[in-house]
Amino acid sequence: MSQNNLDALKCEACHIDAPAVLDVQKNEYLAALSGWSVISVESIDQLQKSYSFNNFRNALAFTNAVGALAEEQGHHPDILTSWGKVTVTWWTHSIKALHKNDFICAAKTDGLID
Amino acid sequence: MSQNNLDALKCEACHIDAPAVLDVQKNEYLAALSGWSVISVESIDQLQKSYSFNNFRNALAFTNAVGALAEEQGHHPDILTSWGKVTVTWWTHSIKALHKNDFICAAKTDGLID
Repeated sequence: MSQNNLDALKCEACHIDAPAVLDVQKNEYLAALSGWSVISVESIDQLQKSYSFNNFRNALAFTNAVGALAEEQGHHPDILTSWGKVTVTWWTHSIKALHKNDFICAAKTDGLID
Repeated sequence: MSQNNLDALKCEACHIDAPAVLDVQKNEYLAALSGWSVISVESIDQLQKSYSFNNFRNALAFTNAVGALAEEQGHHPDILTSWGKVTVTWWTHSIKALHKNDFICAAKTDGLID
């Protein structure tokens, strides 16, 4: 599965009984992305990537682009904005795990660069 | 010293040899603020506060207001934007410590609410 495939998918409505991704899927989806890591925060898997910028203004502009994507998808990441750096973290709060949506949104986040 | 006093001060240019605040000053400045905590991250004191909002859009709007303040002051915090919550963290990178500027900027951050 290429990043373009994930990027082309839509974020699905997600409920408390939605399925978390299985480990085998996690690895497949992760391999389709570039620069994303699965981290564990309080035993909850999260998908994280940092992006570098040459100043604060451009970092904040990216934060706003990610924010617009989040509103469009109805799915909201944590966005840490620093001088020259934005770290985006996707996970699915309702299931306290990674859902396929998170990988789709990660690919769409990469699509905001360029 | 009241919050208004801190809020009225200007952020000074800060150099690598600028003085970190002494513990006694830290307590005085902190007492002049509301809801801010000094946290230690990798042995670096940082000044942090979380603000709640009723949706993502309002949280992101606050992030942008903090960003505009940061650009105006020439001093940039970490801003963590989540659904309904923004956490702002000020410290002075050049001295890896808290400078009076950080308390001034914390007061100015509170001034953005309302």
